Amino acid sequence: MEKLKKYVSVKDEDHFYHQGAVELLIFNFLLILTILTIWLFKNHRFRFLHETGGAMLYGLLMGLIIQYVTKSPDVESGTVYECEKLKSGPSTLLINITNQVYEYQYKREISHHNVNGHQGNAMLQKMTFDPSIFFNILLPPIIFHAGYSLKKRHFFRNLGSILTYAFLGTAISCIVIGLIMYGFVKAMVHIGQLKQWEFHFTDCLFFGSLMSATDPVTVLAIFHELNVDTDLYTLLFGESVLNDAVAIVLTHSISIYSPKENPNAFDAAAFFQSVGNFLGIFAGSFAMGSSYAVVTALISFIHLTKFTKLCEFPMLETGLFFLLSWSAFLSAEAAGLTGIVAVLFCGVTQAHYTYNNLSPDSKMRTKQLFEFMNFLAENVIFCYMGLALFTFQNHIFNPLFIFGALMAVFVARASNIYPLSLLLNLGRKQKIPRNFQHMMMFSGLRGAIAFALAIRDTDSQPKQMMFTTALLIVFFTVWVFGGGTTPMLTWLQIRVGVDPDEDLKAKAASQSASNLDKNTTKAESAWLFRIWYGFDHRYLKPLLTHTGPPLTSTLPEWCNPIARLLTSPSAYGDQLKDGDTDYIINNDELTENYEPSAHIPVPAQDSTGSIQATGKEDIQEGDLGLGGYKLQLQHTACEPQKNSLA
Amino acid sequence: MEKLKKYVSVKDEDHFYHQGAVELLIFNFLLILTILTIWLFKNHRFRFLHETGGAMLYGLLMGLIIQYVTKSPDVESGTVYECEKLKSGPSTLLINITNQVYEYQYKREISHHNVNGHQGNAMLQKMTFDPSIFFNILLPPIIFHAGYSLKKRHFFRNLGSILTYAFLGTAISCIVIGLIMYGFVKAMVHIGQLKQWEFHFTDCLFFGSLMSATDPVTVLAIFHELNVDTDLYTLLFGESVLNDAVAIVLTHSISIYSPKENPNAFDAAAFFQSVGNFLGIFAGSFAMGSSYAVVTALISFIHLTKFTKLCEFPMLETGLFFLLSWSAFLSAEAAGLTGIVAVLFCGVTQAHYTYNNLSPDSKMRTKQLFEFMNFLAENVIFCYMGLALFTFQNHIFNPLFIFGALMAVFVARASNIYPLSLLLNLGRKQKIPRNFQHMMMFSGLRGAIAFALAIRDTDSQPKQMMFTTALLIVFFTVWVFGGGTTPMLTWLQIRVGVDPDEDLKAKAASQSASNLDKNTTKAESAWLFRIWYGFDHRYLKPLLTHTGPPLTSTLPEWCNPIARLLTSPSAYGDQLKDGDTDYIINNDELTENYEPSAHIPVPAQDSTGSIQATGKEDIQEGDLGLGGYKLQLQHTACEPQKNSLA
Repeated sequence: MEKLKKYVSVKDEDHFYHQGAVELLIFNFLLILTILTIWLFKNHRFRFLHETGGAMLYGLLMGLIIQYVTKSPDVESGTVYECEKLKSGPSTLLINITNQVYEYQYKREISHHNVNGHQGNAMLQKMTFDPSIFFNILLPPIIFHAGYSLKKRHFFRNLGSILTYAFLGTAISCIVIGLIMYGFVKAMVHIGQLKQWEFHFTDCLFFGSLMSATDPVTVLAIFHELNVDTDLYTLLFGESVLNDAVAIVLTHSISIYSPKENPNAFDAAAFFQSVGNFLGIFAGSFAMGSSYAVVTALISFIHLTKFTKLCEFPMLETGLFFLLSWSAFLSAEAAGLTGIVAVLFCGVTQAHYTYNNLSPDSKMRTKQLFEFMNFLAENVIFCYMGLALFTFQNHIFNPLFIFGALMAVFVARASNIYPLSLLLNLGRKQKIPRNFQHMMMFSGLRGAIAFALAIRDTDSQPKQMMFTTALLIVFFTVWVFGGGTTPMLTWLQIRVGVDPDEDLKAKAASQSASNLDKNTTKAESAWLFRIWYGFDHRYLKPLLTHTGPPLTSTLPEWCNPIARLLTSPSAYGDQLKDGDTDYIINNDELTENYEPSAHIPVPAQDSTGSIQATGKEDIQEGDLGLGGYKLQLQHTACEPQKNSLA
Repeated sequence: MEKLKKYVSVKDEDHFYHQGAVELLIFNFLLILTILTIWLFKNHRFRFLHETGGAMLYGLLMGLIIQYVTKSPDVESGTVYECEKLKSGPSTLLINITNQVYEYQYKREISHHNVNGHQGNAMLQKMTFDPSIFFNILLPPIIFHAGYSLKKRHFFRNLGSILTYAFLGTAISCIVIGLIMYGFVKAMVHIGQLKQWEFHFTDCLFFGSLMSATDPVTVLAIFHELNVDTDLYTLLFGESVLNDAVAIVLTHSISIYSPKENPNAFDAAAFFQSVGNFLGIFAGSFAMGSSYAVVTALISFIHLTKFTKLCEFPMLETGLFFLLSWSAFLSAEAAGLTGIVAVLFCGVTQAHYTYNNLSPDSKMRTKQLFEFMNFLAENVIFCYMGLALFTFQNHIFNPLFIFGALMAVFVARASNIYPLSLLLNLGRKQKIPRNFQHMMMFSGLRGAIAFALAIRDTDSQPKQMMFTTALLIVFFTVWVFGGGTTPMLTWLQIRVGVDPDEDLKAKAASQSASNLDKNTTKAESAWLFRIWYGFDHRYLKPLLTHTGPPLTSTLPEWCNPIARLLTSPSAYGDQLKDGDTDYIINNDELTENYEPSAHIPVPAQDSTGSIQATGKEDIQEGDLGLGGYKLQLQHTACEPQKNSLA
């Protein structure tokens, strides 16, 4: 009898494992379907559906099927048990049920009005995974990959504009959406379309901040495929990467904004505390992320210098790189900062410094690894979004609210792009033309971040309505705007088939013809940026990588002993060698290199060509072709069979 | 007030996230330390500590630190609450605590005597992760990688011996350990060293089966580095891969063996049911795993045939490959079979068929991806083993039992290797020499699988004692035997620095000199194997890959219409082209290629050389050098810059 009971209990446990397997299998199946469809589409050059859109569509269909096929209400759930002995919810709970002790783990707190939502379909409930999975598992690789694949040279040329759009633009967008929604909600309450829940202004601002995270992944994939004008690509990509970080921290700051008394009245102290929170968290996460990257650069630098056999262990190098980058995320989370922001800046810094110290094999491995993780995570999120329309138990559809939100999102995007472009064009040598502005306006898609932010908190009814609305706006923008990118590009007469390096060269040449001053050949050469560039080039790069001039020549005389210690021996030999960073980052295909453009004649990306282009616009570099040559030699010494891939 | 409460609850939730981050950070930190140490060791050619040993050591130290530094007993745990209303344990439990509803998720059932174990250190409790994580997340990549990196040509040459060691050997080992332990336990009870728990013979057999899974990862890494004799390497590697599968299914079959009445008496019906279970689960898992691989091969084959631009999307290909392989695992689990066995045979089949259809870029990507996952998972498991000595709350140390188990393990290994080698040598042309047998005896390390099987069930006291014992045996064998591999190799005068292909060539040549019959040039050419080889070569390979003769020439005349449909157009052109499978699999460095031997002169692995070697010993192949040449051409057409890597 004892045995038999045991047997049943083992079976029971197995049942739980198998249940998990079935859910994962459904996701796998959806992803496989998505890949096969996209494969077919890519072969036929259909560009109206990106893999993310496809994933969403299949998720939606699967949700529909599960909803109507596996209708099996779970009898047990929905019942709330009383426990007077407990004062607070412990993390693990031991419960004695018919003389058997079961262990239960704390999952979450549920509002009373959501309890009924639990009387749902058991299968659907199982498919709903914890929102923290988005923030802790799925988003980090996506964001890291974005940072790691930032095309640095073009990014820095447009740094000022990108920062303006990302910070000022997101703030504008958040406030505009917040204000419009607040007015809208007030009006709806007035005409009786909405019950007067506790819909505060902070809730509207919260909605504004989460809807401000743009995710033009679909648009950028098409831009990449069609080789759209580099400046437009960089502006959009840079803006969307940084604006995710801003929106995440902004949402967090707003959610912990807690005025002492009346939640609708303005509380200056609480407001300034929120602003302080925002700045503190942002700066802290930035510092955490970049310092981990600096540590990685130093470790890989020391190993490269001390142990010459480094390139024999690309696996160890890749492992270290991966683990340290992940640690940046975890440390930020553990310190109460925002891990995703940390991982973004960690990615940017890793690409800037560590990438140069890696062996050629590791460069490729890290690139492909993060690309793969990004691909999977992105498709899982979009699949899940499709499913969420059915699996989420507490949807509140309010057509008027959704309509208002859609309007607010567009107005906010317009009041972000057009006024800021006007402002920026005052200072820019290379103006942002009208058609670029329209395209940026059009590319304001919402995606993974907005969804993840919205699903993180769905306790109260306003939050549930916001979640439903955010989900539908994501669907709408990804399908309609994502699908309409190619026609829009044609309509706006934006040039395609541009080679990034040739483009830069041409622009630099046309500008230097009209302006002979060397320092203004850049589209923007803000003094802040130039100070940073000089500092980075003279001190940080020689310290952390093998490029740049030796520290002995850049540091003052009296620092010589230290400088000698810190400079890599190879730096003396190739003072002219900088620029290989740019060479590597520009020449590679970090972003979506699984879809090179085959139908448009791609100019041969030979290394000397790109290096010469770099040389043209670099501030203090000489003969960079030589640098590229030396780089090749260095790789050859290490792994002869792979130098063509480096 | 409402707000404030909300704020606190958000903070609370955050606290949970942060706690998780800290634990993961500790693991990351341990892995980073391990990598840095190993990097240092590899540079100084210390071979007495492999990364797995290092990971275990650091885990142990960290466990010690956590144990003595963070002494903070959690007041809440250890208390069992009553709930009379519930009849069984639901998967989710809603509990009302001081007017707040909390959701709790079912974790596991706990035996009454283990409840006190819960009054432990909160930090240590947090570090203990669910045993199902081993089986569902950490082991699959390790096992898949083992299957995928099996050196096929050498494996098939020794197939008979490997199968004998894996099936018969594991069974012998399981029974011998079971019998010895049963005698030992009886004796211990007799002298009063052990209380008479319900220590049945099945429990002893259970222990025997889990201790029969050998894991010579340390030994094989050193073999690989030193280029030890290929036959020895293959015998050990093949045995350890297959024996994991056998041990897992065996353990499962024993754990569900449930005699009707007296658990100590022999119940023929239950016994045969267990045998049936074993065979059914093994065969089912094998079928599930290989059929997923066949599906993958077919999909990649169709895509390769229909869409010529395949090599443009290596990311999609890699994604598909990864997801389908994972689906094999999940489907087997969902069907109540053993996912790990399915994933092993999926790996073997993928390497055999699908690998040939992949674009060169995808070949490298999949290889590196699985290698990386294997590396991480292996080190996490070994780190965790070190930690588990302190984090596991219910250790039962019994020195006498541990001593007995250690003896039993060695006796069982000896009665596996020596008698079976004797038996096999009767049939083998190429005998297994004495020193190889000693080395195989010596390489009977226990590792990840034994640990994962032991931790899966630690409910009863005998199981807890077994777990503690298994853990200590893993420590002992990995450190002592792993560290002693190099001296042992020297002492046994086993030759090192052997080039696998040259070796095979030499052996084949020396054999064909003494024996002119072409069909017996193989070390073993069992009729079963030859039938399979012929079938595979004539029908499966042409159907699933681009190698082998066209189906139109191998199938009977009347099948011609179907054959024409199924044969890839390219197969007609290169009837002589087979062998590139062998070429690719042999020539690559799937196993541990992050540690090539640098101090031993590695013979240049030029492709023609290895292909000629293949040609010498292949059953029905003609001029394979030509095949290799054609293969090169094919790759060149696709991705010119990468053909040297293929």
